[in-house]
Amino acid sequence: MTGPAQATPHTSSRSAVLDVIRAAGTISRVGLVRATGFTGATISTVVRRLIDDGLVLETGRAESTGGKPRVLLQLNQSARYAVGVHLDIAGITYVLTNLGGSVVARMSRAGAGAEDPPVVVERMAREVDALIEGVGVDRDLVMGLGLVSPGPLTPTSGMRLTPPAMRPWEDFPLDRALEEATRLPVVLDNDATAAALGEHWSGVVGGSSTFAALYMGTGIGAGLLVNGLTYRGASGNAGEIGHICLDVDGPECWCGAYGCTEVLAGPAAVVAAARADAELARAAGLTDGDGEPSRPSVVAEFAAVARAARAGQPAARAILDRSARHLAVAARTLANIMDLELLVLTGPSLAIAGSTYLPVVQEEMDRAFFSRATHPVTVRLSTSAATAPAIGAATMVLQSELVPLRQGLRLPEDLSDAEPGGTARTGAAGG
Amino acid sequence: MTGPAQATPHTSSRSAVLDVIRAAGTISRVGLVRATGFTGATISTVVRRLIDDGLVLETGRAESTGGKPRVLLQLNQSARYAVGVHLDIAGITYVLTNLGGSVVARMSRAGAGAEDPPVVVERMAREVDALIEGVGVDRDLVMGLGLVSPGPLTPTSGMRLTPPAMRPWEDFPLDRALEEATRLPVVLDNDATAAALGEHWSGVVGGSSTFAALYMGTGIGAGLLVNGLTYRGASGNAGEIGHICLDVDGPECWCGAYGCTEVLAGPAAVVAAARADAELARAAGLTDGDGEPSRPSVVAEFAAVARAARAGQPAARAILDRSARHLAVAARTLANIMDLELLVLTGPSLAIAGSTYLPVVQEEMDRAFFSRATHPVTVRLSTSAATAPAIGAATMVLQSELVPLRQGLRLPEDLSDAEPGGTARTGAAGG
Repeated sequence: MTGPAQATPHTSSRSAVLDVIRAAGTISRVGLVRATGFTGATISTVVRRLIDDGLVLETGRAESTGGKPRVLLQLNQSARYAVGVHLDIAGITYVLTNLGGSVVARMSRAGAGAEDPPVVVERMAREVDALIEGVGVDRDLVMGLGLVSPGPLTPTSGMRLTPPAMRPWEDFPLDRALEEATRLPVVLDNDATAAALGEHWSGVVGGSSTFAALYMGTGIGAGLLVNGLTYRGASGNAGEIGHICLDVDGPECWCGAYGCTEVLAGPAAVVAAARADAELARAAGLTDGDGEPSRPSVVAEFAAVARAARAGQPAARAILDRSARHLAVAARTLANIMDLELLVLTGPSLAIAGSTYLPVVQEEMDRAFFSRATHPVTVRLSTSAATAPAIGAATMVLQSELVPLRQGLRLPEDLSDAEPGGTARTGAAGG
Repeated sequence: MTGPAQATPHTSSRSAVLDVIRAAGTISRVGLVRATGFTGATISTVVRRLIDDGLVLETGRAESTGGKPRVLLQLNQSARYAVGVHLDIAGITYVLTNLGGSVVARMSRAGAGAEDPPVVVERMAREVDALIEGVGVDRDLVMGLGLVSPGPLTPTSGMRLTPPAMRPWEDFPLDRALEEATRLPVVLDNDATAAALGEHWSGVVGGSSTFAALYMGTGIGAGLLVNGLTYRGASGNAGEIGHICLDVDGPECWCGAYGCTEVLAGPAAVVAAARADAELARAAGLTDGDGEPSRPSVVAEFAAVARAARAGQPAARAILDRSARHLAVAARTLANIMDLELLVLTGPSLAIAGSTYLPVVQEEMDRAFFSRATHPVTVRLSTSAATAPAIGAATMVLQSELVPLRQGLRLPEDLSDAEPGGTARTGAAGG
């Protein structure tokens, strides 16, 4: 089912053709007919429009098996760009990608922390400006901004039932505020779902178009890709394995349930266990001289515990191992429900400690995955675990070009004569 | 996204058109163009073929908003039939459906029990004969037989890692043996997946095309329908919630893992708990005078405990309540991972005790489903819980007509001149 020139289902012929060209690198019109199943006439019309719009280039000719050589097509990579932003309490990660989804600029800045949402939004707008200007890209070519953050998200905007530290963001009209501040169309999504898309476009999954990305940042979640499309569920919040129950008699989670993966295995649980061990807390630098927290975020604290474990500190190793064993059981639940063949470990916390978690998760799959008699589950560590959500956020913008009639989202053609005020863009996201 | 005349994705235009006609009841060619997105010319060609094949009838004319009245199309319900068989240790359920998926005959017989697979297959062939002959349907119009059983199944045939009682079925070439015995093409699938299909075609889900069917028979599983298509996963074993972990320190399951839903909540666990209480065991009739098991299957024993609970026996109520609470947590995990809006309780054991389980599952969703701030999860009790898997099995055959190029499956047109020996049908299923 998979392969570089294999079409994935799309709602428009334009989207399917662009996606196949992107995946193939170079491809002829005949190749597009084969890959998409569209008629030659449809391909001819769609390709002409894409060339007229400057999104696709003709590039040399392929050897043919007879008849005249075939003209090859490829994306005009630098025709359009997209901004991807991963907003988390612990850090904000930015990427700028070209039309092909390649990262042309990236940067990391301080997380949302305890700042008020409007203050963070103004800062994000300045940081997006710096990202685009720093690499010298014409702002008129930037199609939009994808922003991803911990779920659950409502379909229209904003976060719901957020972790305690992000409560001020509930009911904040994030998409509209960010559109006004950046003068870019904004799409919002769940960071774990975006991580799966990011892995698909840039990661370690090779030709696989069906897999789950197990995400650990400040929280734990999963993104699901099925035949190249994100599986989103009823409200875009599919994959919430951070709040499945691993222990009916377990401790209470901030979400109100008991024995959740996040309260047993998440970075905050790891840090709390490390801090309960005064010697380890000191050795890992979790506290300053007065016993007060000395690091800016739970991910930074988690990184300190992970470093202590790598340095051979037995208490740190035991704590991480316990977290890994719980995460492995959650991963097995995900594999059982989705009947997975491939699972990718990703996200900022697994960028730090993934090598500790990988063998534990793989062992759990080999030992106890229910359908193991029919096929194994391969577990891989992402090579872009820290930036996968931001890359996925940018590709959401690129894919909204692939579906140009997406409600309210301006087409690239409209960008040059758009008014700076941006009222026409309000409501571009979500809907 | 849903509605009676809404096309769901299919691999062929014929399949999409048949499915829309079935769902709509009656529909015009113009309506088909709207519902499928195909051109008028494509619809015209496909409909002509379907009428020529006798699968679709023209039936009267609809009022038009102008111009000539539109001819309405409907399925020729009695043009083809399909057999659905649900094979379980505790019982074998048969249905015969017409082309529209309506049940025209049903029967229940003794389960596979401890009999040898070849003996059971010969019996199933006789019972299928009785089913078809009993209702006077011309056997040449029977397209094939769908057989569903507890998973996991291999893609090619047979069961793997089956519950202990079904071990003799591992490696038994069930599809080929059944094809030879019944002289019908056979498709195999997981009973929980079939239950979801059965609910979609006949059940309580109304217009919903995305939901999960939580199945409890001898075992526990789930079937997933996404936009009207079964979500099957890498090997057709998606939805295995019977073997997700609810308690990392829980008891060992027959599958080798610990704290599985099935070992905590399944009918065998309920019966074991009831039997451990000598008074309850006697009151529920679980044992004969000598303390030996007196009922033919675990589902029959489970039914006895459920009856005792309904009669107000406190120990029986407590045992069922404990099972329901564990099943509810598993259901919440499923809802969190799939971001569900609708869950249907189905399967033979929930046909018996569903009214006890329904409020407990609904309460767990309302209280602890992670995305509850964005939308609720509705839980419904199936109205065809005992037969949904068999109905789903038959619809798999009907849908393979909808995909007529399915590997090796004979087309209905070929049935009248097929040789009785059936070698051409070997390998019809799975592949």
